[in-house]
Amino acid sequence: MRNLASIVLCIIATVAYSQTQPQLNLMPMPASVQQGSGQLTITQAFSVAVSGTHDPALEAGVQRLTKQLSAQTGIPFRAKEGTSATLTVRADKDLESVLKLGEDESYQLTVTNSGAELTAPTTLGALHGLQTFLQLVTIGPSGFAAPAVTIKDQPRFRWRGLLIDVSRHFIPIDVLKRNLDGMAAVKMNVFHWHLSDDQGFRVESKVFPKLTGMGSEGKFYTQAEIRDLIAYAHDRGIRVIPEFDTPGHSRSWFVGYPELASNPGPFTVETESGTSSVTDPTREETYKFMDKFVEEMGKLFPDQYFHIGGDEVDGKYWDSNPKIQAFKQAHGMKTNADLQAYYNEHLEKILTKHHKIMVGWDEILRPDVPKTIVIQSWRGQQSLAVAAQQGYRGILSYGYYLDLMWPTAKHYAIEPLSGAAANLTPEQKALILGGEACQWAEWVTPENVDSHIWPRNAVIAERLWSPQDVTDVNSMYTRMHAISLELDSLGLTHNTAREEMLHRMAGTADVSPLRVLADVVEPVKDYNRWDDAKGPIDFHAPLTRLIDAAYPESDTALQFGALVNQYIQSGYKDQTAASQIRTWLTLWRYNDGKLRPMLQQSSLLQEDIAISQNLAMLGAAGLQALDYLEKGQPEPDLWKSQQLAVIDQAKKPVAGLLLQVAAPVQQLVEAAPQQSAHN
Amino acid sequence: MRNLASIVLCIIATVAYSQTQPQLNLMPMPASVQQGSGQLTITQAFSVAVSGTHDPALEAGVQRLTKQLSAQTGIPFRAKEGTSATLTVRADKDLESVLKLGEDESYQLTVTNSGAELTAPTTLGALHGLQTFLQLVTIGPSGFAAPAVTIKDQPRFRWRGLLIDVSRHFIPIDVLKRNLDGMAAVKMNVFHWHLSDDQGFRVESKVFPKLTGMGSEGKFYTQAEIRDLIAYAHDRGIRVIPEFDTPGHSRSWFVGYPELASNPGPFTVETESGTSSVTDPTREETYKFMDKFVEEMGKLFPDQYFHIGGDEVDGKYWDSNPKIQAFKQAHGMKTNADLQAYYNEHLEKILTKHHKIMVGWDEILRPDVPKTIVIQSWRGQQSLAVAAQQGYRGILSYGYYLDLMWPTAKHYAIEPLSGAAANLTPEQKALILGGEACQWAEWVTPENVDSHIWPRNAVIAERLWSPQDVTDVNSMYTRMHAISLELDSLGLTHNTAREEMLHRMAGTADVSPLRVLADVVEPVKDYNRWDDAKGPIDFHAPLTRLIDAAYPESDTALQFGALVNQYIQSGYKDQTAASQIRTWLTLWRYNDGKLRPMLQQSSLLQEDIAISQNLAMLGAAGLQALDYLEKGQPEPDLWKSQQLAVIDQAKKPVAGLLLQVAAPVQQLVEAAPQQSAHN
Repeated sequence: MRNLASIVLCIIATVAYSQTQPQLNLMPMPASVQQGSGQLTITQAFSVAVSGTHDPALEAGVQRLTKQLSAQTGIPFRAKEGTSATLTVRADKDLESVLKLGEDESYQLTVTNSGAELTAPTTLGALHGLQTFLQLVTIGPSGFAAPAVTIKDQPRFRWRGLLIDVSRHFIPIDVLKRNLDGMAAVKMNVFHWHLSDDQGFRVESKVFPKLTGMGSEGKFYTQAEIRDLIAYAHDRGIRVIPEFDTPGHSRSWFVGYPELASNPGPFTVETESGTSSVTDPTREETYKFMDKFVEEMGKLFPDQYFHIGGDEVDGKYWDSNPKIQAFKQAHGMKTNADLQAYYNEHLEKILTKHHKIMVGWDEILRPDVPKTIVIQSWRGQQSLAVAAQQGYRGILSYGYYLDLMWPTAKHYAIEPLSGAAANLTPEQKALILGGEACQWAEWVTPENVDSHIWPRNAVIAERLWSPQDVTDVNSMYTRMHAISLELDSLGLTHNTAREEMLHRMAGTADVSPLRVLADVVEPVKDYNRWDDAKGPIDFHAPLTRLIDAAYPESDTALQFGALVNQYIQSGYKDQTAASQIRTWLTLWRYNDGKLRPMLQQSSLLQEDIAISQNLAMLGAAGLQALDYLEKGQPEPDLWKSQQLAVIDQAKKPVAGLLLQVAAPVQQLVEAAPQQSAHN
Repeated sequence: MRNLASIVLCIIATVAYSQTQPQLNLMPMPASVQQGSGQLTITQAFSVAVSGTHDPALEAGVQRLTKQLSAQTGIPFRAKEGTSATLTVRADKDLESVLKLGEDESYQLTVTNSGAELTAPTTLGALHGLQTFLQLVTIGPSGFAAPAVTIKDQPRFRWRGLLIDVSRHFIPIDVLKRNLDGMAAVKMNVFHWHLSDDQGFRVESKVFPKLTGMGSEGKFYTQAEIRDLIAYAHDRGIRVIPEFDTPGHSRSWFVGYPELASNPGPFTVETESGTSSVTDPTREETYKFMDKFVEEMGKLFPDQYFHIGGDEVDGKYWDSNPKIQAFKQAHGMKTNADLQAYYNEHLEKILTKHHKIMVGWDEILRPDVPKTIVIQSWRGQQSLAVAAQQGYRGILSYGYYLDLMWPTAKHYAIEPLSGAAANLTPEQKALILGGEACQWAEWVTPENVDSHIWPRNAVIAERLWSPQDVTDVNSMYTRMHAISLELDSLGLTHNTAREEMLHRMAGTADVSPLRVLADVVEPVKDYNRWDDAKGPIDFHAPLTRLIDAAYPESDTALQFGALVNQYIQSGYKDQTAASQIRTWLTLWRYNDGKLRPMLQQSSLLQEDIAISQNLAMLGAAGLQALDYLEKGQPEPDLWKSQQLAVIDQAKKPVAGLLLQVAAPVQQLVEAAPQQSAHN
């Protein structure tokens, strides 16, 4: 028996090994992984020794690793003095006091039976290597251990960022910090802080105190908090780029400083979504303001790059101001884009004066803009390719908008150097610096923001770090699951907040039938939630509905879809798959009966009665289809068209939610044998 | 159909309402609750106004209420200025700067359709009333609301405490703070901080720096942290009583100050459990030390009461010291208890000198001890009754030891004024001040300590607050479930830590079959874990086994047991119960197959293979019994005795765990109809 077991194990191991990616649960996948034999066991004697430069940032990184490894394994480490270290770390160059774009981030990590060695040219690389070491440690029959391996790693792109919008909904510092921990875990190196928008200005300005005094509803960061956050990010090898969006998206500036606006105020951030003005680019005073503003903020945010937004300028406020129209005419400007270019040109000079490089969205790219600027594209690879051909650097955000609720695989497939960018010369390609995931905050609160960002952000991090040919979707999902658990133990709430939100909806009732429903729904995609809102968004409304708790992607739907495919591909012979399908369908068929009283009793859940009914109908349809398939009996007349009508109904969004198991149930129904009556 | 459904609903509602306690989910149950009609809806306009004294502690309490209510409902409050407050709060007397025993804690709370009014003679009472208001708010069909009600409330006992031992395992300040939040939620008013024991001295002393310098392994609280925690507790109406256990349980003192010990050192806290000495009560220097020590600590801890431990003094260290023996003889002392009395008498004078009242465990009660002292009894009501008859005050801890893993109902049944105490005169009864739950820390870490304390501590809090006739166990469990959810949203981890611990054991495998097993097991009771350890406890070992993650009481086992009883009492006719029993048994029958690979692959779970097998066998036995019962068929010969042998096996602890569903399965097996062959 023992021999037989071993053989079976070998076959499984070989199959796993023959996948396109080695099955270590690393994310992002390193550039080169060479697996050895044996493993390094983690015991209470675990310790780390640092040699080379004794960079305090590296020492702090080692302390975080030790603390995190202790939390993950539950082992209180207590190395005896005099024994040799389990992990030795050596970096040759300290972290810069202000992190720079393009710093060497490479590292090499070797694990053997007897110890691990991490070397890197810089502390930055060593910090990345520590994260890899942490991901290598897993539990096995003889304890926690890291497998023997040699890893040589460096990022594919230099700019791997996450944007968090803190204007639409304010996100407190502690929530940002845990997200920085998450970014560091997946080797992202740019935190893009979207600090102002129509709905709120979030940074204390001592020069212009009315920016937060009147434009933040009291929700802003003090300069001390910002310095603290920047130091926190710096310690983790993460640059912090502030964005102050202008001349559009800037109503919050005008509440305290209405003279900046293109039409008369008063303005308020109390109102719902939608702009009320844009900055007036024709007044000299605007540039005096921006000069002082950039001077102050440029010192507060030490990074060399400074984001001025520049997107979605609503020209109607310029069109309706006669003085602005006269100005355009006097300066021979034909379009509002010309006027914005004029604004940006002046702004760029102010930034240069204060030693900053301008970053902005697609719209800032206009003839004669200096080549130093960086274009962030929400429009796509085509836009970046055009910029690169003209010699401009760019970063991609199209396809990485986390707020659009896309399935993970769709984000994973977005390749910065595809489409028009694939045809660029190597020199032009080098101008594409990387990309940024974007978490716009219309529909998030501190409570659910983590679940909108994670774990999907980890695969965007992989896209920007790992070699271009790391694209296996199954491997990605497997590894994302592992990293998601690691992120849990870092304190991120992407997996835990939903449960609390479900309990809030359920009151003291047993939450399990609600969980069954929540497990198979996803929020509507793209801008459908905006469209469904049919009017301005009230940014002060509670976000406590099922749509706010639901994960962007349903694991259960993914697994069920895979099961159905497996069953169909087996020619309906795979009995294990059939049995598992039946278990799911039965659960859904009878869940509504258990759930209904709760849905009726909770003001937050009444809108979900129809979707719970739909799930029951899908369960019933699927069970009948399975019966026909298993027995090989033909379905009765009319059955299929009735069921397809039910499924069509179940595919329509209810309360902003999609039933993602409708499609695989439809596959079952369509596969059911038909009566071959009259044709 | 609609009418029928409504009727069924009405019957259920009536049954619930006719229980002995009103079914508001309040814990502790107030002294008087009069339900009205209607309810007060909580909207975004919710606000609180404070009148009477403007005690900063009350203002802070109101802010905490608002924040917590916002977190629980998910509603961001934004009251318009000028509108009248939803809740008005009035207290006449500020919180004392040092909280005193016996302060008026009463309050009155009236909720109507249009608003709520809370009045109290003191801030202390008002703080309790705010907690009651928070518990009244639940979700319903028309939103979050508090039902119309008039509550008049005051505690039954003046001393309602929780002891947390931070010596055996160090518990950081943030963990203590969230537990103070939990205490405030259930109206407990004494935090008993067990700050020193053999395994560690946890308070910075500036007079005797070697206490932590050598006796804490670096794990201690600075004086600033202690002052901060005391202020935090004070704001919540909680007194902080320090305990420095002496002359026993004090090895950690001797590491830095071996001259205090009764036998020569050196001493170390590195060693495993068990004493190494006790304080030498014969040396004048001991009292000089204690005088300076009490002076310093007495200032740090402002409460009038000061706990000196005094329990479990191991006389062998005195017996083996000839000088101590000579001292005893010279002073005419016959026993070591006499010697300890001599020690305590001197200690009591030192405490009095520094304006402190002595509290100690049962052992300190000896003839001639001043009547001011307070006896804390780990021995029982009898011990307190004897003390009260002699005029001593006492608090009960017997029956409230949370570390013994008792089921909740067993703690709930422990009545301070029962047994010998029931026969005391009213004046003597008044000497019994209340009680304290005790969380001894041999088997807890910061990770799982909350789950050992909560939610069971809430029912001890109720026993000490609510009228003596509040004893309905079903009502208690229902209300405890509700308070447990409230404690979740306060940040306590009693419900969430287990999941993380299970994930640690499971690695990246699907954790659900492990959860099925974890849901039906409980740690062994009383001191069996100590006994099973067969030797000293290593306080540095990881606490990451299933026994460390398992809840003290299995909800599933409770529910299953109730189902089985219901089924048996129905004469095996209750088909709904039968079907639910079958679902559970089937789940358990087949869980081992899913769980086994994980158990084999994880070093932390291998010890649980046998208990998983036992669960499968229980499932199989139960299913067979159910078949016989449902079909009315007699069982075959030998079947019952075989099954009972299996169940006996399954009742034995495995890896420190008890399978709590074994007993109800046994009930089913014993109920199965027998062949009436030859008798």
